[in-house]
Amino acid sequence: MILTKRKLAHIVFESNDKASKTFDVILLVLIFSSIIIAVLDSVGELHLKYGKIFYALELGFTFLFTLEYILRIWLTSKTLKYVTSFYGIVDLMAILPVYLSFFILNTQLLSVIRALRLLRVIRILKLGRYLSEADFLRESLKASAAKIQIFLFSVLTIVLIMGTLMFVVEGPVNGFTSIPAGMYWAIVTLTTVGFGDITPQTPVGQLLASLIMLMGYAIIAVPTGIVSSEMAKRRMPQNYEKEKTCTFCGFDHLERGDNFCKKCGEKVRD
Amino acid sequence: MILTKRKLAHIVFESNDKASKTFDVILLVLIFSSIIIAVLDSVGELHLKYGKIFYALELGFTFLFTLEYILRIWLTSKTLKYVTSFYGIVDLMAILPVYLSFFILNTQLLSVIRALRLLRVIRILKLGRYLSEADFLRESLKASAAKIQIFLFSVLTIVLIMGTLMFVVEGPVNGFTSIPAGMYWAIVTLTTVGFGDITPQTPVGQLLASLIMLMGYAIIAVPTGIVSSEMAKRRMPQNYEKEKTCTFCGFDHLERGDNFCKKCGEKVRD
Amino acid sequence: MILTKRKLAHIVFESNDKASKTFDVILLVLIFSSIIIAVLDSVGELHLKYGKIFYALELGFTFLFTLEYILRIWLTSKTLKYVTSFYGIVDLMAILPVYLSFFILNTQLLSVIRALRLLRVIRILKLGRYLSEADFLRESLKASAAKIQIFLFSVLTIVLIMGTLMFVVEGPVNGFTSIPAGMYWAIVTLTTVGFGDITPQTPVGQLLASLIMLMGYAIIAVPTGIVSSEMAKRRMPQNYEKEKTCTFCGFDHLERGDNFCKKCGEKVRD
Amino acid sequence: MILTKRKLAHIVFESNDKASKTFDVILLVLIFSSIIIAVLDSVGELHLKYGKIFYALELGFTFLFTLEYILRIWLTSKTLKYVTSFYGIVDLMAILPVYLSFFILNTQLLSVIRALRLLRVIRILKLGRYLSEADFLRESLKASAAKIQIFLFSVLTIVLIMGTLMFVVEGPVNGFTSIPAGMYWAIVTLTTVGFGDITPQTPVGQLLASLIMLMGYAIIAVPTGIVSSEMAKRRMPQNYEKEKTCTFCGFDHLERGDNFCKKCGEKVRD
Repeated sequence: MILTKRKLAHIVFESNDKASKTFDVILLVLIFSSIIIAVLDSVGELHLKYGKIFYALELGFTFLFTLEYILRIWLTSKTLKYVTSFYGIVDLMAILPVYLSFFILNTQLLSVIRALRLLRVIRILKLGRYLSEADFLRESLKASAAKIQIFLFSVLTIVLIMGTLMFVVEGPVNGFTSIPAGMYWAIVTLTTVGFGDITPQTPVGQLLASLIMLMGYAIIAVPTGIVSSEMAKRRMPQNYEKEKTCTFCGFDHLERGDNFCKKCGEKVRD
Repeated sequence: MILTKRKLAHIVFESNDKASKTFDVILLVLIFSSIIIAVLDSVGELHLKYGKIFYALELGFTFLFTLEYILRIWLTSKTLKYVTSFYGIVDLMAILPVYLSFFILNTQLLSVIRALRLLRVIRILKLGRYLSEADFLRESLKASAAKIQIFLFSVLTIVLIMGTLMFVVEGPVNGFTSIPAGMYWAIVTLTTVGFGDITPQTPVGQLLASLIMLMGYAIIAVPTGIVSSEMAKRRMPQNYEKEKTCTFCGFDHLERGDNFCKKCGEKVRD
Repeated sequence: MILTKRKLAHIVFESNDKASKTFDVILLVLIFSSIIIAVLDSVGELHLKYGKIFYALELGFTFLFTLEYILRIWLTSKTLKYVTSFYGIVDLMAILPVYLSFFILNTQLLSVIRALRLLRVIRILKLGRYLSEADFLRESLKASAAKIQIFLFSVLTIVLIMGTLMFVVEGPVNGFTSIPAGMYWAIVTLTTVGFGDITPQTPVGQLLASLIMLMGYAIIAVPTGIVSSEMAKRRMPQNYEKEKTCTFCGFDHLERGDNFCKKCGEKVRD
Repeated sequence: MILTKRKLAHIVFESNDKASKTFDVILLVLIFSSIIIAVLDSVGELHLKYGKIFYALELGFTFLFTLEYILRIWLTSKTLKYVTSFYGIVDLMAILPVYLSFFILNTQLLSVIRALRLLRVIRILKLGRYLSEADFLRESLKASAAKIQIFLFSVLTIVLIMGTLMFVVEGPVNGFTSIPAGMYWAIVTLTTVGFGDITPQTPVGQLLASLIMLMGYAIIAVPTGIVSSEMAKRRMPQNYEKEKTCTFCGFDHLERGDNFCKKCGEKVRD
């Protein structure tokens, strides 16, 4: 089989025949393997034992992902759009730190780059391409975004005021060393995470903490309520689409897909 | 352009033309800047280095907010209503602590005032003016307020009884030094924050703690349920659309699609 | 005004005129005061300073609650039903521990009774009488009770299996001293409380812990879902009452309150 | 009464008359007793005191469950289907570890088997047979499974990226010894469990932690929303009642109240 550029583009960008599906599966396996290598390499003992093998494998993966990146740039008809798109940037970020580590000889900078190389776990985002089923969740969240933003702003206001109050009441002696530290504690408490690395010691501080915890209890209901009601709405098509009106009898509860008025039986014009 | 009092009032209170929008944006920037200064000043190292600059900036911000406060009092037609309103009090609280620190020479009181000055982060509440979009959340919460109050009362009852039980069972040896301490622990546990600064040590105490945790698990569903169902109701137009009134008997709970009044049987005209 | 037994019963049991409302308010104040005294008395320093005053006040409150208890027994026409009712038992439990402490001279038993006396905070449950507004919450929870029971049983099954696994994997060295200890830890983790007094130390244990935490994340949705959907149902009367069928045209989506069929206009017989 | 094989099968597999119900109740009591023995035996002190009695009881229970297992295999008409079914495997797993401990003499392996014997608490799953009421929950969860899977995948992506970032920012000095350790911390934090065994110490780490906590706050709404809306759908009969099929064009999404097919306009007969 001779690979024309068109056939190759089909294999890389589509996933509706055998060849293109095989390409996708190979890419999935590569992504997962490279991430597992990165994770294992971070464990001290394994790095000591297999560090060199891991490094060799990493160079191999980087080479393959570079090939993929070049292929996508070459095959796409809209190069600029791809390079500046979300996945274009992810594809570049997945290989760049490794190359940077070659060109920088300054040892201090190298340790920073070496740390950055760990960020190649961002390759996991390359998988997003294959998750078309996530649309329901994404749309529900997008539709709730404005309300969630206001909610987060309110939470941050509470966090700022509560963090300041706790800094004033408890003070540096009890671990609340500054307003940012107090805000960190307020977030830990309001989100019910509760690490316990900083805890109020004075009775007034404990009373304030109790207040903020009970508030968190009532507040956690809000984002849940927003997303729940958004999802519930999305599941009930009749709420959306009662927009068409029968031009004959004026009945206005027709759904988009209705060809005939369900009240009088006349044909409905769009 | 000559600024009449009327034009100035328009700039300060409205936000529908260029001048008034500029005024709002300047105010927003001022509020955020003054809060960031207050937060940074609380960090020990930064206070040592830049403490004097922060103090000068703070005086500047306070001067500007005082100007704004006087402007609002002068421009509004209902002075008393403004001064006693929520934002009137917030505007005053945002400047008062700084002025108080000038007039008090008693050094001990001064340290209290200095702490209170931190509370000028309350200026963040001045932003509330620009959040008309928060209405949906506010109304949903307001409509749920009565139910949430009863819920909080029930929670406090559980907290009181559980705190007392844990004080009796575990005792001061295991950190439960008093009933208020037990109640603080019960709130920490029931809200699933779980700091871990006080934990039950005896088997009976751990059994009670398990009970209270499982209870918290079931109880957290309640505020969520209240807010969710309230929001869901608000989103379903059909609950509001029952607005058609029978022109014969005046029954006003007819749905849009009803052809005949379901109370008196008369044909309904649209 | 001469108090007949009937008038007195009205004052004690009803709350629809001035005298009976005054009685209720006095009782509320007494209950709250006696609870605050009990809570304050448990704080070591306050007990040392004001212990005798607290004790005297407690005897006074107990005397008044005893009067109230006798009054209720005397006034009610169904004595046995009151004594065995929830509030009858609460009323007795609120006074009994204090009297028991008089008759027991054995000093060791006395310390137990003294601890039990703290349980007079149970008096807070006497307030339940005045919370008729809690019905919505109570009914929603009652209707969800069967489902929540099955849910709790499933949770306990997970807790048992996970607690045993962690005991096997981590062992007594890492704080998991027995299966009950493992179950306690599993409840602490699954409910997202997370005290941190016991934490997994081995990689396998941390993997298992991660699994149980993610499970808890998905599981917490269940009770919320149950209660939310129950509340949502309760708010939409139309889901309940579409039970009547028009005897003329057979249209079966009539609500209970409909007198006439909204499809054909005929009178509907009940 | 002579027990035929058929009668015995009825007693074992059904539960609609007195004899079969008695069999079920005896089995329930046996399961609970054997689990309680296993749990108690794991407590060090009780094992020292009553270890031998517990061991004898365990052998007795195992003998009885073996009898039950053989009985089921003998009585069922589809032996292979039972043996490979979920409950068939549970029934085998509930007795196997005890028998394994007899045949293995290697003392090191014995200690592993002894640990495995604890896993006989899996017997609790034998109870699942009697929980037909759990169907509502099971179906709601099954219907949400696909969405929850995508949700868990997204969570794991966040966990991987956040765990790596924290490992890079905080480093082994502050407890983040490897990427897996960072991921464990990220799960502990995102699920709001918050043990506090590992906590961020640097300002950047605390900022990242704050971000992940606020994200967890918004994210926890998603599974709740999925399950809630799924349950709400299941409770609203009108979503299921769209069953009428047009006898003319075969369109099967007609609502009960429709007089005319909204696809082809023909009058619909009920």
